Amino acid sequence: MASLKGKALVAQSGGPTAVINSSAAGVIQSALADGDTFTGVYGALNGILGVLNEELYDLAAEDPAEIDRLRRSPSSLLGSCRHKLKGLDTDRGDYERILQVFKAHDVRYFFYIGGNDSMDTAAKLGQLADEIDYELICVGVPKTIDNDLAFTDHCPGYGSVAKFNATAVMEAGLDTLALYTHDTCNVHEVMGRNAGWIAAATGLARRHADDAPHIILLPEVPFVVEKFVDDVQRCLADYKRCFVACGEGVKTPDGEYLGEAGGQFSKDSFGHTQLGGAANTVRAIIEEKVGVKARTNRAGTAQRVAMHFASATDAAEAYMVGQAAVQAAVDGVHGKMVTLVRADGDEYRCTTGLVELEKVANGEKPVPPEFIDANGTGVTDAFRRYAGPLVRGEAEVEIGADGLPVYARLAQRLVEKKT
Amino acid sequence: MASLKGKALVAQSGGPTAVINSSAAGVIQSALADGDTFTGVYGALNGILGVLNEELYDLAAEDPAEIDRLRRSPSSLLGSCRHKLKGLDTDRGDYERILQVFKAHDVRYFFYIGGNDSMDTAAKLGQLADEIDYELICVGVPKTIDNDLAFTDHCPGYGSVAKFNATAVMEAGLDTLALYTHDTCNVHEVMGRNAGWIAAATGLARRHADDAPHIILLPEVPFVVEKFVDDVQRCLADYKRCFVACGEGVKTPDGEYLGEAGGQFSKDSFGHTQLGGAANTVRAIIEEKVGVKARTNRAGTAQRVAMHFASATDAAEAYMVGQAAVQAAVDGVHGKMVTLVRADGDEYRCTTGLVELEKVANGEKPVPPEFIDANGTGVTDAFRRYAGPLVRGEAEVEIGADGLPVYARLAQRLVEKKT
Repeated sequence: MASLKGKALVAQSGGPTAVINSSAAGVIQSALADGDTFTGVYGALNGILGVLNEELYDLAAEDPAEIDRLRRSPSSLLGSCRHKLKGLDTDRGDYERILQVFKAHDVRYFFYIGGNDSMDTAAKLGQLADEIDYELICVGVPKTIDNDLAFTDHCPGYGSVAKFNATAVMEAGLDTLALYTHDTCNVHEVMGRNAGWIAAATGLARRHADDAPHIILLPEVPFVVEKFVDDVQRCLADYKRCFVACGEGVKTPDGEYLGEAGGQFSKDSFGHTQLGGAANTVRAIIEEKVGVKARTNRAGTAQRVAMHFASATDAAEAYMVGQAAVQAAVDGVHGKMVTLVRADGDEYRCTTGLVELEKVANGEKPVPPEFIDANGTGVTDAFRRYAGPLVRGEAEVEIGADGLPVYARLAQRLVEKKT
Repeated sequence: MASLKGKALVAQSGGPTAVINSSAAGVIQSALADGDTFTGVYGALNGILGVLNEELYDLAAEDPAEIDRLRRSPSSLLGSCRHKLKGLDTDRGDYERILQVFKAHDVRYFFYIGGNDSMDTAAKLGQLADEIDYELICVGVPKTIDNDLAFTDHCPGYGSVAKFNATAVMEAGLDTLALYTHDTCNVHEVMGRNAGWIAAATGLARRHADDAPHIILLPEVPFVVEKFVDDVQRCLADYKRCFVACGEGVKTPDGEYLGEAGGQFSKDSFGHTQLGGAANTVRAIIEEKVGVKARTNRAGTAQRVAMHFASATDAAEAYMVGQAAVQAAVDGVHGKMVTLVRADGDEYRCTTGLVELEKVANGEKPVPPEFIDANGTGVTDAFRRYAGPLVRGEAEVEIGADGLPVYARLAQRLVEKKT
């Protein structure tokens, strides 16, 4: 037990993942187990929006079996949002409102599961609480499929989206192998915004030189049409087909997103107006400049919540960072985010550490040059050593009598408003 | 053993599935086990194209472990194609060429795994063989994710694409649940061409009224913009979000595909030119007419080869139809396709039957009215009773030390040409 007693509030933010609920379960189960410190454990409906709207619910009132099932359930089942708070000067009213709600419910511990924007919010909230002398412990729990948070070896959520996309590329690559006489190319678009971690992970599927993906397009490597066309043509000469894995945030040397309409990839040059999606632009380039048929795959949100084939390593680590956040809070740690720390040595082992929220808020971690091959379209052995362990193991999937997964359903009965 | 001795040739055609290799394994293993009847078992590289090009390979020369691994491997690993043969009058030369190659290699048994075009080819080939007195036994093995073959209760390949898409919709539906305050709608496009069987199968994910998919768009039900907008608005009123599952072949009342550019869903009416994909059109309609943000998911080819979460029932039946085809051939059956026959009664049981190739070639089976709900946007309990058993059980997945599936690799060393 800690010297500070009060309620714990746990909230999820930003894009869902396959394992962010594992982190929530780690927080909730740990906090519920320490009734001396935590006089209650609340969830916020739809992240920070739920706090602003005072839409809170009592996690102790949920069925403990459903709380445990969160460990095997995708998406952000506490509820998430994309409500971004700016600086204390600009959005001070929002921060004050949050603390007003915290005070009203005696929330003394805030566990925020999210990416760098969330860490920024948590940091500023802690800062304001200090200013007004409201005793509050804020601890961040890392989450992002993009894997672009600095100061942590990797991010919970990444291993699972990596495993799913590497598998989907392996499978769709065999589809192209079967039908190359008709559908010669395939462009498989993956998430990851400005970081190419997910695109790079599809490279894990390539065990043999002729396996997909033959070309990986990373946002870290500017896309040059002529070079790409050369790469595709060489691939066709070698393998009669070409499977491209494409990050959604790939840009031209001018910094223009491939997925955006207009500019050099407009209707004028390729005969179509490109409507969102880097893959569509890449497909048009292949059909126009190489002259073979290309298809596109774009799993969209389904890739980030593909719990049915998630990484057991990722799920376990996601739970571990949730537990570690509560332990840190009980130990009086404030204003930090839990990190994943990889042990030295050949065998993969991972423990947790802590880093200042402010540092995470402002950091970004692109795929470093040593993980990208000389041609800029593949991954190195160093990347394989880094990412390989993260996709290992199959997360448990509970299957219903109907043959489909069974995921948690929370009651989320709101507690009475006090403000 | 049969009275007719000679080589067996097995070929795959059309779009790959998660389990078409199971059917191939059923044929190959059964034929290899009957050396008295089958003097050899050949595969055709890329379906009928491989026969026309005399690109054949000896399946007895493949590693038996890899042949067995076909049962756990997606796509069409013998090689497929989309080379469509027309009538005997138009394409007689091609049919004659095929029989020339068969004769040269003493191929007396032709097992063709495919959809109705393939059954048409097999039927005509058998007809020409009869005409020229070349003793040849042609047996068809059903395959199509679209599930639109007539005279069979269902088609191998359907159960697996149904299971994957129902699961993906369940998971992506939870993503929309988490983020509805930002991404209010999602349009999840599935394959199926002019039949809505796959779109309908996503309805299996809806265990509770508020579960995705809230609206299913079937090609069998003409898409009327005003009604759709009403449906979305009612859904938003009830659940604050709307998840739409959309068949790729959905059409307007005028018979125009939603996915095609131009017409009433052109740049003029919605501000964008729609580029392929029914989901993009539906998304534009939601954003324009309902005024909320919508996303799209479109797994593309990855959905039909999603072996990592395929149906065990489907995989077992796919193998069974392959075995049954060889048994039928040995019994002297000619010019027929193996069918799946569902036993009466509450418990699901399935055996095989036979039907004339010509009948299958010309039949199509849309989703019947009794499987579609009164509003035209959901499925009935009768559909659930039909499709439910087909997605049950998880097909075995062999996982490598790297945490990713291990699929078969055939050597496919071509035999010497004789023509």
